[in-house]
Amino acid sequence: MNDATSLLHADVERALNGLTDKKIDHVFFVACGGSLSVMYPGKFLLDSYSRKLASDCLNADEFVQRDPVILGSTSLVILCSMTGTTKETLRAAQHAKAKGAVTVGLSVDTLSPLAQEVDFPIGFEAPYTTGVPIDARDSNYARLYQLVMGLVKAHDGIDKLAPLVASLNNLQPAIDRAHATFEPLFTQYAGQLHGESVIYTLASGASYGAAYSFSICVLMEMLWINSQAVHAGEFFHGPFEVLDRDRAFVLLMGLDRTRPQQERAKVFLERFGSPEKIMVLDAAKLDLDGIDDEFKGNLVPLIFFDTLWKFAYKMANLRNHVMLEGRRYMKKISY
Amino acid sequence: MNDATSLLHADVERALNGLTDKKIDHVFFVACGGSLSVMYPGKFLLDSYSRKLASDCLNADEFVQRDPVILGSTSLVILCSMTGTTKETLRAAQHAKAKGAVTVGLSVDTLSPLAQEVDFPIGFEAPYTTGVPIDARDSNYARLYQLVMGLVKAHDGIDKLAPLVASLNNLQPAIDRAHATFEPLFTQYAGQLHGESVIYTLASGASYGAAYSFSICVLMEMLWINSQAVHAGEFFHGPFEVLDRDRAFVLLMGLDRTRPQQERAKVFLERFGSPEKIMVLDAAKLDLDGIDDEFKGNLVPLIFFDTLWKFAYKMANLRNHVMLEGRRYMKKISY
Repeated sequence: MNDATSLLHADVERALNGLTDKKIDHVFFVACGGSLSVMYPGKFLLDSYSRKLASDCLNADEFVQRDPVILGSTSLVILCSMTGTTKETLRAAQHAKAKGAVTVGLSVDTLSPLAQEVDFPIGFEAPYTTGVPIDARDSNYARLYQLVMGLVKAHDGIDKLAPLVASLNNLQPAIDRAHATFEPLFTQYAGQLHGESVIYTLASGASYGAAYSFSICVLMEMLWINSQAVHAGEFFHGPFEVLDRDRAFVLLMGLDRTRPQQERAKVFLERFGSPEKIMVLDAAKLDLDGIDDEFKGNLVPLIFFDTLWKFAYKMANLRNHVMLEGRRYMKKISY
Repeated sequence: MNDATSLLHADVERALNGLTDKKIDHVFFVACGGSLSVMYPGKFLLDSYSRKLASDCLNADEFVQRDPVILGSTSLVILCSMTGTTKETLRAAQHAKAKGAVTVGLSVDTLSPLAQEVDFPIGFEAPYTTGVPIDARDSNYARLYQLVMGLVKAHDGIDKLAPLVASLNNLQPAIDRAHATFEPLFTQYAGQLHGESVIYTLASGASYGAAYSFSICVLMEMLWINSQAVHAGEFFHGPFEVLDRDRAFVLLMGLDRTRPQQERAKVFLERFGSPEKIMVLDAAKLDLDGIDDEFKGNLVPLIFFDTLWKFAYKMANLRNHVMLEGRRYMKKISY
């Protein structure tokens, strides 16, 4: 799908080309639920490189109703909805356009309502709900990262597209290896945690979105297990008091600059929790061959996101709960 | 404490005066736990009025380790720690200064380590942990709101200080009336919810911070009840699947522009939950005499924050749990 002159996906390239004559100083990352979870590492990446572009991550209805007055003709609003039909996200696209902002919309179908609503649609592929294997280079994360680093190149003059794209191209094999690495851990902890009524996730920095999506879209939505994605820094300012020998946690230890917060949480969890209730996914144990050191911290959350599905299916089997069919409300009733 | 020429608290006035000759284009709201929860409505207020100032809310360790490259000499970093001794917040102040940013620090003691670290210390009063009655006009919320609207006046030319300060001066009587209004509700629901192992809070917009602090600092930290502050818009994208007739929720319905999200959540909660498990605090039922219509949405979260303590004490009594002494780790061990 790449044209001959660009490293980037054609849709991303088209969006970036369309932005070259516009003055942009603020990026809004806007979506709902699982799609919003992807925006957090997108903002983390932008925060890491851009001195020119401020940004916000907002739920789509919050974005519309909050209606930040800074939103205007120098804003870029990046939206994402897997199906491109999420009504809150469509309203957000309309709101952004009414305010004069430029809009980019990611969805799997480039003829989706979202794609038709925005200035620049970007397609991606989603394996998680169809079961069809795709390459992670075609995921929403990968497209968003290309877009963000394209903005950084245009606005900050920092060109890291070659190592980013090379890293994304080498991501799927790293994910496949990670599945093998984490398999024994997932089997062990699915056995130990499947009966829990509450499981917290813990992360920070680039990995916080992966913890958030696992908490709200998998544990709560699909397995009906109570949860919260606790920020690893915030853990020490209230949430840690629920920790005892019986409490279950899944800690994501990534490789970005915020890892010290996760390491601090690990020490505390091991001191006051039980090893059989604390599952630690440590990216330092993964073979990340082919991923540039500079982007390991940014790409590890995709590995967490992808591999944790296997853990979820193991948990579902042991709970006699049919994943995706185990919903009471979503896509079953109107609300 | 006000000087003769200003509506504003002297510390806030001093900070604003000290900023007049500096170019500021980005505000970082930085704190931990309960103090971070106050920053969310601060950002909501800034988002509502400023076209000039972008902003971020970050946990203090996340701020230091993420180290957004946009942080620099045109940044204002607003920090808050009740005691002024929170080590993560002190590190954040040092980090901000090292990057050339201007720093403002809120703490109850204007000789605290935080106060001494920052360029502009601002004192406030905190009743919640000492039990000494104060006036809400002297709270961290009130000082922060004065500071934010002072920045809006300086940067956007919008002067709303008179109605803001008048509203803050009339807030304590409104809180006192709200205690009476909510008293029967709190007595009823403490009886119905004190045995719960999981209680979710739900809010959006200006009220999200109050839900967050109640969830992590009261339910989790002080009552050891599992919780998550679910964003009312995000509720429909995963979290709502944990709702059934047995699940407990506390819904905060404020008066800011995001109330439609809370109304939507209320309809859903009432449709699939049990009335005896769903406590709704509706600010529309309060007597807010003396609070300007324009700021009702911003001041209601202080009423939620303050009154919910009474609910927490009722819950603690019924759980035979001694509030504040009911901590296992915080201020008892080093970590």
